[in-house]
Amino acid sequence: MNNFVYYNPTKIIFGVDTTNKVGKEAKNYGKRVLMILGQGSIKKIGLYDKVINILKEEGLEIFELEGVKPNPRVDLVRKGIKIVKENNIDLLLAVGGGSVIDTAKAIAAGLSYDGDVWDLFKYRKPIKPTIPIGVILTLAATGSEMNGNAVISNLETQEKLAISSSYLYPKFSILDPKNTITVPLNHTLYGIVDILSHVFEQYFDKTDGAVLQDRFAEAIVKTVIETTPKLIENPEDINARSIILWCGTNALNGIIGVGKEHDWASHAIEHAISAIYDISHGLGLAIIFPHWMKYVIDAIPHKFAQFARNVWNIEGKENFELGLKGIDRLIEFYESIGVPTKLSKIGIGEEKLEEMAEKATIFGPIGTVKKLDKNDVLNILKMSL
Amino acid sequence: MNNFVYYNPTKIIFGVDTTNKVGKEAKNYGKRVLMILGQGSIKKIGLYDKVINILKEEGLEIFELEGVKPNPRVDLVRKGIKIVKENNIDLLLAVGGGSVIDTAKAIAAGLSYDGDVWDLFKYRKPIKPTIPIGVILTLAATGSEMNGNAVISNLETQEKLAISSSYLYPKFSILDPKNTITVPLNHTLYGIVDILSHVFEQYFDKTDGAVLQDRFAEAIVKTVIETTPKLIENPEDINARSIILWCGTNALNGIIGVGKEHDWASHAIEHAISAIYDISHGLGLAIIFPHWMKYVIDAIPHKFAQFARNVWNIEGKENFELGLKGIDRLIEFYESIGVPTKLSKIGIGEEKLEEMAEKATIFGPIGTVKKLDKNDVLNILKMSL
Repeated sequence: MNNFVYYNPTKIIFGVDTTNKVGKEAKNYGKRVLMILGQGSIKKIGLYDKVINILKEEGLEIFELEGVKPNPRVDLVRKGIKIVKENNIDLLLAVGGGSVIDTAKAIAAGLSYDGDVWDLFKYRKPIKPTIPIGVILTLAATGSEMNGNAVISNLETQEKLAISSSYLYPKFSILDPKNTITVPLNHTLYGIVDILSHVFEQYFDKTDGAVLQDRFAEAIVKTVIETTPKLIENPEDINARSIILWCGTNALNGIIGVGKEHDWASHAIEHAISAIYDISHGLGLAIIFPHWMKYVIDAIPHKFAQFARNVWNIEGKENFELGLKGIDRLIEFYESIGVPTKLSKIGIGEEKLEEMAEKATIFGPIGTVKKLDKNDVLNILKMSL
Repeated sequence: MNNFVYYNPTKIIFGVDTTNKVGKEAKNYGKRVLMILGQGSIKKIGLYDKVINILKEEGLEIFELEGVKPNPRVDLVRKGIKIVKENNIDLLLAVGGGSVIDTAKAIAAGLSYDGDVWDLFKYRKPIKPTIPIGVILTLAATGSEMNGNAVISNLETQEKLAISSSYLYPKFSILDPKNTITVPLNHTLYGIVDILSHVFEQYFDKTDGAVLQDRFAEAIVKTVIETTPKLIENPEDINARSIILWCGTNALNGIIGVGKEHDWASHAIEHAISAIYDISHGLGLAIIFPHWMKYVIDAIPHKFAQFARNVWNIEGKENFELGLKGIDRLIEFYESIGVPTKLSKIGIGEEKLEEMAEKATIFGPIGTVKKLDKNDVLNILKMSL
């Protein structure tokens, strides 16, 4: 296991009706709140009115930035920065899923930087202390509610890039499973794939000896696999929603990844796909991950064998062979919950594979299990067709 | 699963030679550092000189409070409060195990209270914001390095009581496995029992639906069971030391216990034993816990069956019967690593059982799986003879 620093100061407020606590929490940071919002689904479910009323009851002044899309755009981030500066905002309150939270983080990061916010992503400029962020999460998937990472797209340059800073941890995140109950089934499932993919990026790496982290990772995968069919059977099962919600947070709050190398090549490949085709992130990951696994298994067959044994309870003597069976079980699981694992099934052909491979490796080779260059990525994309 | 708030702002600095980072960390909190120390073992292993040199290199002024014993005493806490007040200390630096850290926390708690510090324990007075605490941990066991709890003994009144506050989280904790490598084998093993017992207090409860927390708890238990024999075979195995160290922290940093009811009766019983006989906390827990399990299993047989299945990989149709087998496997494990599970084996007879039972229930019935009154505790103690 490698040395590490673990510091995660986000206050999690978890459970049914905890949304009611947003007023008192927000008030700790000042009077003027900028709500960052998606494309209106929270209005349909009544969450918008509810939050507005709670904030007003505490005497807070509310500003709004609406219209965050999946694969959130840097244009809207720039607009948000302008609003904050013009109105002396005290707190950014993200009400939504990963895109909304990441937009809030990018606004916060941009605020304490003199140049254009995209420089922080493209040239990896250092991020400085900035305005506090609060979250009301509405989708189990991102993990962004309890970490300092954000991913933003630039449609102009067709890039999708990430930043990370300890200054971008939300001060508080409200995880009320009631707010996830109306998420349509397909998006619930893409969220679940996203959660599993976050685990895989940290689990399948070359670090040995991080035993507890691996057992924790397997704990999340097993919990998700056990709970997902219950959610499909009854999408309003509040306890199943709670379990998945908490899995999502723990998949990317650092606890399963400390002291490990991680890989993250599959995410880079998926970002290249969704930068071009604007598909759901989780869907892209369901397609890429199993093929990435098959492409790199020979580098760490013992890890894949461990996955097969500890998650799927299958036995075998030969690591490589057993590992392949584990990957097949994952593919079967995705297919069984109705999530496709081939590009062709969502209408993507070979036309732009080259461009995707180029984009995914724009900063050089990606991943750590195997260093993947453009040609490797192209191979994985072809396997995914 | 119950609603919960999870907020754990301790910065963990983990790994070989991270002790070297104490100077820069300590400096963030001021110039005048009070080191809280045990009974000299850190001098024998050279850690004392090392830390002093690192702190001096950063220009820090060092004060000392030596002599913290296992089952730390309130007398020394009072002495520490006096030193802090007289010398305008900026940071408490606990260098040691749970007793040393808990002493630092009790000093911090007492500092911001006007009356005698024992009032905070005995009358559960509210704890206020106070001086920062830093930690260099030297024993895998307590979990105190990443939570806001402290347990202190009062020999005068023969009481051992706990406090808990979000103001008592260490600002930073340095977890350098090298500092645990010279811990004698018996104390290493008592530490391991302590870790497992922390898990059990949270795992065996009446809350249903906290699936991920239960899988996380099982992850710690399985990791400890797998790693302990390696440590017995080679106590200088630095990776095994690292794994156990990280298990100890995660067993009591909240991550496995959020949204659950917990029990903590076994700890209360053990505290009553070690308040009278001054035995090692872990040893007392190894003796009490299996008998507590047998006494309460009929209230939650499904949880004990889950323990048998998921931790020990044994199967069975009938929960109660299967659960009993799981408990027996735990007893076998303790005996196999040379830790006794009977009071008689450490020379404690039935003379003071009544007094222990009285002490353990001084505030009324204990536990949640079953509410245990004095008579129940007496029964468990008799089973433990």
